[in-house]
Amino acid sequence: MSLILGIDPGSRVTGYGIVKAVDSGNEYITSGCIRTSDQASLPEKLDEIFNGVSQIIESYCPQEMAIEQVFMAKSAASALKLGQARGVAIVAATQLGLAVTEYAAKKVKQAVVGTGAAKKQQMQHMVRVLLNLNAAPQQDAADALAIAICHINTQKSLIKIAGADSFRRGRLGGKGGT
Amino acid sequence: MSLILGIDPGSRVTGYGIVKAVDSGNEYITSGCIRTSDQASLPEKLDEIFNGVSQIIESYCPQEMAIEQVFMAKSAASALKLGQARGVAIVAATQLGLAVTEYAAKKVKQAVVGTGAAKKQQMQHMVRVLLNLNAAPQQDAADALAIAICHINTQKSLIKIAGADSFRRGRLGGKGGT
Repeated sequence: MSLILGIDPGSRVTGYGIVKAVDSGNEYITSGCIRTSDQASLPEKLDEIFNGVSQIIESYCPQEMAIEQVFMAKSAASALKLGQARGVAIVAATQLGLAVTEYAAKKVKQAVVGTGAAKKQQMQHMVRVLLNLNAAPQQDAADALAIAICHINTQKSLIKIAGADSFRRGRLGGKGGT
Repeated sequence: MSLILGIDPGSRVTGYGIVKAVDSGNEYITSGCIRTSDQASLPEKLDEIFNGVSQIIESYCPQEMAIEQVFMAKSAASALKLGQARGVAIVAATQLGLAVTEYAAKKVKQAVVGTGAAKKQQMQHMVRVLLNLNAAPQQDAADALAIAICHINTQKSLIKIAGADSFRRGRLGGKGGT
């Protein structure tokens, strides 16, 4: 795990953010938005999202992608639109060999703000603080960066737990494989 | 317009059918289903759908794809799942240069059975009759073939209308470009 791409998909705006996992914290690499053309047909819009995500991956070569799980009570029509954009963003990554991990929205908030009930503005603020940025990123880009941070922190925790387990086994006289 | 790919997407089963437009009617080329693995993760499933649709296009070289529009009152959760599969199927086609046309479900039924209120079984039966098949295709494949037939018939009607207009202009002494 080193460069992580976070994606916040949408039929009109897809936020993206790339964060580098370093020992001392997390380092901001880039972020922004893929905006689909208002006049474009649905197939053209989906093609724009696919090309946009593919180009980011080809330019920065992240090793993994993280994306938010969707649980919502919105209308079926908006769920269909979001689903189309989300499916396309995910498959753009899998086609280029990236592993994709999904995180519940609560988990992302917990990782960035420390509470699963955090508001959008708190998230935007904490992304700025955690990545040591001069200004808060655009909302969709901030959400994407938050997902990338969540993935890195989750992976770091898993590595720590595995390390502690191995240390404990060592003190108790066990062996690594047992 | 010559070889048309019809697609009936779904997160578990995506039906496909290829029909050739000939002057005397429509000729069946192939049809079937792309089934995603039960054990696979969502990104893996979407990758399977993308690869499946891409392989069909690369094997048969259809020039255009047709897909049903979705208007439904189902839950947001099922709309999200369908949207993801649908987006991936559409972008697999656009990435290989195919034009994609969407048709309302009513229009597909009208084109195949003659009434927008046709039932699934009537559709399956009429697809068999119209394409001169020995047996009815599997349900999802039949739906995909129906969408391809709808596209071909719609295009033929448009060509006829354009032809009649041009003939009328000719009789009235007008010119093609006026």
